[in-house]
Amino acid sequence: MHSPAAKVSGYVVLMIVQIIFLVLFWLFVRYEKTALPLAIDAEDAGSANEHVSKYPQFQDIQVMIFIGFGFLMTFLRKYGYSATGFTLFMAALVVQWAVLMKGFLHMEGGKISLSLENIIDADIAAAVPLISMGALLGRTTPIQLLCMSVFEVALFAANEYLALHVFSICDCGGSITVHAFGAYFGLAVALMLRPASDQNETGKLEGASYTSDIFAMIGTTFLWVYWPSFNSVLADGAGGERAILNTFLSLAAATVTTFVVSALVSHENKLDMVHVQNSTLAGGVAVGTVCNLLLGAHGAVLIGIIAGTVSVLGYRYLTPWMTANLRLHDTCGVHNLHGMPALISAIASAIYASMATVGEYQSELQDIFPAMVGTNGTETKIMGGLGRNATSQAGYQLFGIAVTLLIAIGGGILTGAVLKYTNFRNLKKDEHHLDEHYWEVPAAENKEE
Amino acid sequence: MHSPAAKVSGYVVLMIVQIIFLVLFWLFVRYEKTALPLAIDAEDAGSANEHVSKYPQFQDIQVMIFIGFGFLMTFLRKYGYSATGFTLFMAALVVQWAVLMKGFLHMEGGKISLSLENIIDADIAAAVPLISMGALLGRTTPIQLLCMSVFEVALFAANEYLALHVFSICDCGGSITVHAFGAYFGLAVALMLRPASDQNETGKLEGASYTSDIFAMIGTTFLWVYWPSFNSVLADGAGGERAILNTFLSLAAATVTTFVVSALVSHENKLDMVHVQNSTLAGGVAVGTVCNLLLGAHGAVLIGIIAGTVSVLGYRYLTPWMTANLRLHDTCGVHNLHGMPALISAIASAIYASMATVGEYQSELQDIFPAMVGTNGTETKIMGGLGRNATSQAGYQLFGIAVTLLIAIGGGILTGAVLKYTNFRNLKKDEHHLDEHYWEVPAAENKEE
Amino acid sequence: MHSPAAKVSGYVVLMIVQIIFLVLFWLFVRYEKTALPLAIDAEDAGSANEHVSKYPQFQDIQVMIFIGFGFLMTFLRKYGYSATGFTLFMAALVVQWAVLMKGFLHMEGGKISLSLENIIDADIAAAVPLISMGALLGRTTPIQLLCMSVFEVALFAANEYLALHVFSICDCGGSITVHAFGAYFGLAVALMLRPASDQNETGKLEGASYTSDIFAMIGTTFLWVYWPSFNSVLADGAGGERAILNTFLSLAAATVTTFVVSALVSHENKLDMVHVQNSTLAGGVAVGTVCNLLLGAHGAVLIGIIAGTVSVLGYRYLTPWMTANLRLHDTCGVHNLHGMPALISAIASAIYASMATVGEYQSELQDIFPAMVGTNGTETKIMGGLGRNATSQAGYQLFGIAVTLLIAIGGGILTGAVLKYTNFRNLKKDEHHLDEHYWEVPAAENKEE
Repeated sequence: MHSPAAKVSGYVVLMIVQIIFLVLFWLFVRYEKTALPLAIDAEDAGSANEHVSKYPQFQDIQVMIFIGFGFLMTFLRKYGYSATGFTLFMAALVVQWAVLMKGFLHMEGGKISLSLENIIDADIAAAVPLISMGALLGRTTPIQLLCMSVFEVALFAANEYLALHVFSICDCGGSITVHAFGAYFGLAVALMLRPASDQNETGKLEGASYTSDIFAMIGTTFLWVYWPSFNSVLADGAGGERAILNTFLSLAAATVTTFVVSALVSHENKLDMVHVQNSTLAGGVAVGTVCNLLLGAHGAVLIGIIAGTVSVLGYRYLTPWMTANLRLHDTCGVHNLHGMPALISAIASAIYASMATVGEYQSELQDIFPAMVGTNGTETKIMGGLGRNATSQAGYQLFGIAVTLLIAIGGGILTGAVLKYTNFRNLKKDEHHLDEHYWEVPAAENKEE
Repeated sequence: MHSPAAKVSGYVVLMIVQIIFLVLFWLFVRYEKTALPLAIDAEDAGSANEHVSKYPQFQDIQVMIFIGFGFLMTFLRKYGYSATGFTLFMAALVVQWAVLMKGFLHMEGGKISLSLENIIDADIAAAVPLISMGALLGRTTPIQLLCMSVFEVALFAANEYLALHVFSICDCGGSITVHAFGAYFGLAVALMLRPASDQNETGKLEGASYTSDIFAMIGTTFLWVYWPSFNSVLADGAGGERAILNTFLSLAAATVTTFVVSALVSHENKLDMVHVQNSTLAGGVAVGTVCNLLLGAHGAVLIGIIAGTVSVLGYRYLTPWMTANLRLHDTCGVHNLHGMPALISAIASAIYASMATVGEYQSELQDIFPAMVGTNGTETKIMGGLGRNATSQAGYQLFGIAVTLLIAIGGGILTGAVLKYTNFRNLKKDEHHLDEHYWEVPAAENKEE
Repeated sequence: MHSPAAKVSGYVVLMIVQIIFLVLFWLFVRYEKTALPLAIDAEDAGSANEHVSKYPQFQDIQVMIFIGFGFLMTFLRKYGYSATGFTLFMAALVVQWAVLMKGFLHMEGGKISLSLENIIDADIAAAVPLISMGALLGRTTPIQLLCMSVFEVALFAANEYLALHVFSICDCGGSITVHAFGAYFGLAVALMLRPASDQNETGKLEGASYTSDIFAMIGTTFLWVYWPSFNSVLADGAGGERAILNTFLSLAAATVTTFVVSALVSHENKLDMVHVQNSTLAGGVAVGTVCNLLLGAHGAVLIGIIAGTVSVLGYRYLTPWMTANLRLHDTCGVHNLHGMPALISAIASAIYASMATVGEYQSELQDIFPAMVGTNGTETKIMGGLGRNATSQAGYQLFGIAVTLLIAIGGGILTGAVLKYTNFRNLKKDEHHLDEHYWEVPAAENKEE
């Protein structure tokens, strides 16, 4: 099973998947009306232009997915080809699959309408398996990774539908549905694929080199810069502006906190690049679910301070504990960057929801907490609107994160079991975190390099 | 001729060129009306704002030209200064020249109107010699490169005018006028400058190092991410949205295909960074000419699959054959990334044009195939509109690519002859692919690096 | 004082600063009306959307601040963690502080209104201490750097208010208030912290490695590409389009000039990466103050040519002279990239202002030179409008740069004295330009790297 034949059959399966996508696109996908020519005698309403007004934000998110995630994971000293390459491979596969999967949940007349919105959604969906990949980085084959992502995105789409459309939770920046889901799914898979207890030492290759750490900073910085676009892309009007402002401030506060706490808890009070590369971004995750709410600048800054602190402490104390005791390596520390900050965001959303009033949110209540509309008797109930009160909405927020964790962990364990016990090839310990098993690598370099 | 004096005179010539540009700007270029102050008593129509609505896409294209091309070419182990530096140098010279050259073809009252549109066009024009540079990378002096780009852009502007305004072909993303032209022009120059038959071996410097390969991925990824902006910037309304969607899907499909085919045809089934860096982008080229047509998602995906396959096979089999038999090195493989995918795009455009009907394209027919307007007798003929039928338009598409190839190859051979046989200094074999002949390079680095 | 305890107390102070920010946000900052929900019965004027129309330019500036400055400073061979990390740390602290400081100068009803505009302003303010950091790079502790930035931004906000609102100078791209201020403030601090005369040799670590130079090109290129956004973000309508066009052309001309002059003045006529990384950008600074004026394309190109020449000559002759004679190291050469080009911009602004007429600027005169409105008797005087004539406005431009230099240099000397003579720890000579005193650095790397 470890022969080249296994590789070949794995890649052939992926090609077949691509061809199945082609057929599904042909059968089910049509351009949305805004992307079709106007009838000759129609009056141009100028709406087409407005329809693509989110294009700049879409492009920011593209950079986050492909450059941000890809380069953030180049920090390993001998795994840079895989980090950037597999990110590209996985994202290219997943965006197609996400257009289809999310499309199936919103079909009209048996067809999926294709517009800019769909590919924005697809890019967001691509973040999910990329987050999980961080927990597994260097310990799976590309075939395992890609197959995992196909399972995961299907499950993600279902869970997101459940959370947003059935439970009607607010989750503007996707911290619950994207970050928590991706992180805990990945951790569950990592738990299933964990090494035997006698192979648990951390290898030299599981660390950075001077150069690889700087490559990783490219990823960090682009993620930092464009995070407000990720959090605000699905919000409109004033809510969108608040999402930008809150995310920006939370990131800034988390960054300052990360540097301080990193220096305070580290050996000889030296700063740790792992913290700088990751925990600075925790502010973006922790504010995600609530980024369009009326937090105030101080609310955003407070969330950032908490997130930066928790994330650094997680890297410093919790991750080594998990490696030692659970044999769970979490290569990129997604639990500290995505997992715990997403839990903070979910809790914050319950707190803010419990205080939400129609007097405060006015006309935006319907967008943000649609299930609350109708409570004051002056609004007609809308689709799915249950006339919840604020406490009840807070409860649903917590229910939403609980169900997400359940589905993510359950799905991750199942997927991990499939990857481990079925016909997939598993990497051996000495193949971990090393490009050369799956890539042509330049022959031993001389000192000029 | 190989003395510093040759260098000095070359650079002095380039400075004179810059000063000639200054004079030409002074004589011929004026701000367009949208960039001039409104008269005090004029009513503000708010049009100025709309005029710069393409600014975000312009910036995306800027990143493609300067970061994308520059870093894509850093893959050579000792040619990174030149890759990023000469890209900057060439693009800075060419954008000025393109504003002038393209301006001369569209003068009003003896003046060129300067607006955002001109510099978008100039950025697109800069792509042309940068593509050619890929075929020559490491085997010319900067002076040769810059002089080539001045010739080439003048010829490009003329050919583009011919193709779009005389033959009225569709070429929304510029695969014919930009990619095919740049690739075959560059290959023709490379053919003229090819090494003597006893110097044809591929040197160690013609390959990558581990670090340089990761730098190159910066270029690849930004080109990938922003390609939809390149293809859609000149389209409007619904056509613009289709250009975005089709380019995105074609890139995604080409990427998945590239990884699979690369693994299947490579030694030991290992992935090859050359393929990943380049062939993943072939989907963007191959969909270029037709990106605003009604391809459907499946059409875009199919084009991507074909492009990825052809491109990888080209790198694997055709390029080594050309190196061995024609002594044509094509350092970056532009034939596989730009040349062949552009031919695919031209053929696709003939096929789709042959099926175009006014019933399908409605009010957009005039924008996309202006020469076809009038065929059904219900539209008045517009300027240049010949009332072509669909088959005839298809023929023109093929005629357009044929003329483009002819002009590109003829111009390239001529330019190559000038670079080789006139007073230019030519690099010797042992000066190839090495920064230090034209750059101050840090003294031999020690192992700390 | 050189014990870890000094580090600890420094970081603790920074945490306290962050918490003070939190309290100030809570006390003084509120969302602006555009970022608040519309009343249920209000008619949606669609204005919210327009309010964030500058969002794409904001994101370009974010990339300049975090990626551009951060990576431009990675050129030192062993200071890449600090370059990218401290940029992130400083910018994250400063943006919060700038929102507050600039807000205090424009309070309404005792509150600061928070909107996208504020964080655009904050990003621009972050450029100021980052420029100063370039003059000090590698020769301060992070604590010194951060404390300096807090002082500096307060002073910057005051000086900017003075220049723009009291003296009513034009400074669209901020060359006077941002670039000149940041450069001369930094140089003054560097002068105070200069080494003793027996420690003035330039160490090996004060130079680049092959890899670090390519990292720096990431910074250069992103700064180049997005500079038009920096210069135009505060301009509107036609002035905004001119700012884009002029900046683009000036950068292009400066780039061509930089390459030529670098080759002509360098040893063996080889290009120097320091020039390419920095002087290519001088065109963006030199055109900054005047970028929205009616320069014409030739005016912009001429400014670029002058800036490129002056900047390269500065690096080649002036900087080594300053190092040798003043013991002023100016690690990144900010005097050549920001200082002198900003002076050119100020002089250009006086020249163009002296020729400005209401016949030429029409309705834009009020935006660009508000103090000149009223001179022709047909306009009512506006707030602060003094009915200046053109010569007088030119004088104010020169007065503006003079006062800016005075405040910057005075403030820098004072700040430098505080950093040197109070309780701050100062780096010793052998700790300069080396990450490992403040960062965990991977253990000695082997030759594989």
